[in-house]
This record gives sequence, structure tokens and C-alpha cells, in this order.
Amino acid sequence: MLPETIRWNGKSIEILDQRKLPDAVEYIHCTSVEHVANAIETLAVRGAPAIGIAAAWGIVLANRQGESIDLSIERLQKTRPTAVNLFWALNRMMNASDYELEAQKIQKEDIVNNRRIGEHGEKFLQSDSMVITHCNAGALATGGWGTALGIIRSAREAGKNIKVYVCETRPLFQGARITAWELERDGFDTTLICDSMAGYLMKKQKVNAVITGADRIAANGDTANKIGTYSLAVNAKKHGVLFLVAAPKSTFDLSIPNGDAIPIEERSGSEIRLLPGGQTVPEEIKVWNPAFDVTPFELIDAIITEDGVFKPN
Amino acid sequence: MLPETIRWNGKSIEILDQRKLPDAVEYIHCTSVEHVANAIETLAVRGAPAIGIAAAWGIVLANRQGESIDLSIERLQKTRPTAVNLFWALNRMMNASDYELEAQKIQKEDIVNNRRIGEHGEKFLQSDSMVITHCNAGALATGGWGTALGIIRSAREAGKNIKVYVCETRPLFQGARITAWELERDGFDTTLICDSMAGYLMKKQKVNAVITGADRIAANGDTANKIGTYSLAVNAKKHGVLFLVAAPKSTFDLSIPNGDAIPIEERSGSEIRLLPGGQTVPEEIKVWNPAFDVTPFELIDAIITEDGVFKPN
Repeated sequence: MLPETIRWNGKSIEILDQRKLPDAVEYIHCTSVEHVANAIETLAVRGAPAIGIAAAWGIVLANRQGESIDLSIERLQKTRPTAVNLFWALNRMMNASDYELEAQKIQKEDIVNNRRIGEHGEKFLQSDSMVITHCNAGALATGGWGTALGIIRSAREAGKNIKVYVCETRPLFQGARITAWELERDGFDTTLICDSMAGYLMKKQKVNAVITGADRIAANGDTANKIGTYSLAVNAKKHGVLFLVAAPKSTFDLSIPNGDAIPIEERSGSEIRLLPGGQTVPEEIKVWNPAFDVTPFELIDAIITEDGVFKPN
Repeated sequence: MLPETIRWNGKSIEILDQRKLPDAVEYIHCTSVEHVANAIETLAVRGAPAIGIAAAWGIVLANRQGESIDLSIERLQKTRPTAVNLFWALNRMMNASDYELEAQKIQKEDIVNNRRIGEHGEKFLQSDSMVITHCNAGALATGGWGTALGIIRSAREAGKNIKVYVCETRPLFQGARITAWELERDGFDTTLICDSMAGYLMKKQKVNAVITGADRIAANGDTANKIGTYSLAVNAKKHGVLFLVAAPKSTFDLSIPNGDAIPIEERSGSEIRLLPGGQTVPEEIKVWNPAFDVTPFELIDAIITEDGVFKPN
């Protein structure tokens, strides 16, 4: 059994502290909008749909504490710039009459949508398939079931045998710490690799598909997702491997014509400087640390949503 | 000033312990062939040319201690399987009449060769160039000057302005720990990135060339180098970025027709499981850890040796 990503206990919102995975399963008890904003900023909760759900519950807490809803929305909008589900969820809350009911709906609908994404997406996989995934687009990035990992779960439900290679996902190792753990706990044949090994794996073995989530999809299908996704897509194209993006429609931003206009968060170089064994790369050495990249739609074979599949042309 | 990679003090061979870089500059004093074999196996010394040089000095020590030269060569041949310079250097030692003189020659020739590689290679770079390099093919991987980094040094000597992006090189971070430090110390404009960012960098910025070293080059030009090189080559081709391999002729293995026949070392999964901050990926999760990959010659624009340049066709 996987722990829940976010749960409402009637008084506070409990957020699984994903920074501590896989070593510890611990929850942060948030009783204010500031707590929730902090949990999002520090990546205790991450994954585009999960960020949206957490933010929605932040508004519930703001309302209970008699704080300004407008200022609370503003505060939460500033937490992270790229994943559009955050802004989408806050927009729904802004127009809600019953905040708690709306947050519940956002969370429950997400699980239903992921199930539907899984059903649409699993049709792309053969009965014995080797799949690569990147970062964590699993149950822990969403309300439950997952987007990319939801497709893998649905394929198993459909009787298919799926072997998964997980890219560790530098710099914060969401693949190594979260996805590999989530899949292993769920009984999948799981192998961890470094991000730089995926291209060579495609050259050596019959990889059927790369499946990732998304943080924001522009009107033309260009997709922002965790840094490294673009390089995987380039390698998938080279090797004739299917490249699938799994995301709810709330990840689309139709106000943005193409990927160039998607704001890409750049994070602190310290995420890259800290090495295992306590070594550190000196401060004098510059670091470039974009948290996301943009994959053009022409490198994507299908974007799989709850309402169906989008393909280039 | 950079520390020497390997130095003979008349009695023992002193090997820079590269596992401790950049935190400490410390030497291991090897007085026996077993010490040297151990330094190679544990990656205290690494880089194809440097491994060959260290092995040559191992034979000098074996001879001084009255150990069997044949058994010592056998011992050193077993240390690491992929870099062919190891076998090439041991072969020279096998046929030498004066071991110390031959080891000196191997070491000194390597520096001369690197200077020549630099002169041939720097002609590929424009007066203002942005270059990506992977792993460490620098002074610290060789007798001195370096192969890939030698080209960058020679370009600067020729008055060119070279900005270098260094891939950190998972799992052992030779780029972050060694190359970034070597270049920064040598006054280059150096920026560290995660391996997964290089493709996106090529998409966003005008990268002129990717330059790497090599561990073994087959007769047809297929090149084994640090894992991640292949994915960089695929991305370079996609973006019209020059992909250059810099290596002395001793890296060629003409007995091997193509890259499929190059033995690829697979190392312990523990190298990938250990994360910064003391976290560990559980043992139940499988890990695939090839130390090298093979880039087919058709993805390489030029292999630059001391005697000239090889291009496909």
C-alpha cells in the first residue's frame, strides 16, 4: 500500500513529506496557508497535480482562519512558476462557493481523471513492454493512481507485463527516491538508472515507450516537464521508441501559444553542488539549474488526457 | 597550477587520489604492483591514458621488488576491462629492456601527444565558442594537458575565447568533482550542469561543440567512453553541434572490428544508490550501472589524435 499524498483530517491538511522518501514516511500537518505555501516551495509536496490539490486545501485553511482569500491565492501563486495546475486549482477555488467541497472535488476528480488517462494510455503498450519513466508522475505526484505511472498500472490491470526503468532524475532524485520506491512497493519489475544511461538503454534493448508526466502544455502541444525530458524525447525519436506524455487537461495552458512562452523555474545551484559522501562543488564554480525543459510537440507521439489522446497533426 | 596526476619520486610512485577531489589534494604512495592495481580498481587514478601510465609504473615497482613481471602484468590487466590504454601500456612494458626508462617515456610521450591533439583539435573551434564536455578528459586523466580539455587549452593558447559547460557525470561525478575544478583552477569560464541538461542547453544556446575523451576506439571508429557520451552524441547530431572525440592513438584497438565487441564494465549499483544527504536507495531496487557506452562513428564528426584527424568517410 502506498501512503496518501495529501489528506484532510477535518481540521488540518496532512502532506506527505516527499523529501524524506524513501527513508521515512512522515506527514507535515499544515494549519495555515503559509504552511502549505512552504510545503510547496520546499518540495515537501511536488508533482503538478499534487501541487494544485495542496494549494486548494491551502485556501480551505485560509478561509477557516479568516484570512483574505485574495491574498492567500496571491501567496500560493508565487510558490512555483512552471506547473500550471497550481494556477488552475487556485482559479477554481477563487470561484467556489464552498471551499472545502471544491478542494474535495479537485482531489477526487484527479484520481478519476488518472484512471481514465490510464485506460487511454495503456492501449499504447504491448503485452510485454519495457518502459522508461522520468521523475515521478505517480500516485505521489497526484491525488492517486498517477499519470505516467497510472498508465503502467492500468496496463498491468489489463493483464500486461510491464518492466520499468526509472531515471534517477538529477538533481533532486525524484526518480530514485520516489518513483523507484513507489513502483517497487507496488510490485513492479523496477530498475533504476542514471539519466545519462537512458539513451544507451534504448540502443541496447527493445524499449517500447518513454512515458512522462507534464507541468505545463502550451496550446500547440509543446510540453514543459522535469529537466531531462527533452533529451529523453530526442533519444526516443532516434531509436523509434514511443514518447508518451500523460497529463490531465488542467495541465494545458491554452493562453500560451507554444513552449517558448512557458516560464521555466531556475533553482539554486546548491541542489547540484551537494554530492553524496558529504563532498561539495566549490561556490566559485557556476551552476545552471533549470528545473524543467520544453519538449516540442513534434517529438511527442501522444499526449494522453482523461478525455482522449492528442497527436501531432 | 594543477597537481600532477602521477609522479615518480625515485622510490615509489605517487598517485593523486582523485576520489578526494575537489575537497583535498592528497597523494597515495604506491610501493608495490598491488598498491597500483588497487589505486586503479578503486578509481583513485582514472582516465584511460592515466591508467596506462600508472600501470607502467606498477611494472617498475614489480621489477624493483623482484616480483614476476608476467604475473604483475596479469594482475594489472585485470583491474579494469574497457580502457585499452591499460593493455597497450602493459604491452610496451612487456617488451621493454629498461622498465623505468620505458615508463618515463610512456608518461612524457603522453603529454607531447596531448599537445599535438590540442593543436589539431583547436582548429575546429571558432574564436568565441561554447563547448560541452563530459567526465574528465583533462590533465588529470592523462600525463598532463589533457585530451578533450587539451583542445580547449590549445584553443585558448591560440587566442580563442572558450566557455565550457561541464556535465557532472553520474554516477561518480568526475565532471563536477574533477573537470569543473580543473578548468576553474585554470581560469576558464566554467559552468556545471547535470547530464540531463545538456540536450536542453543545445536547444537554448548556440553550443559549438561537444568534446569528450575515449576509453577504446574500435577499428571502424566506434568509440567507448564514459556512460552518457552516447546520449550527448545523439543530441549533438539533432542540434547540428560538432561532436569531437580526442584521444591518443593508443586508445585505438584495431583488433576489434566495431563497438559491439568492446567490453563494457558494469560497476556496483551502490555507486547509484548512495545519494547526497545520507539517503540511500533500498537494496531491493535493482540498478543497472554500465560505466561506459559506445558511440557509433557516424555520430562523431572527428576523432582527433596526435597524428591527425579521422572523420567518417
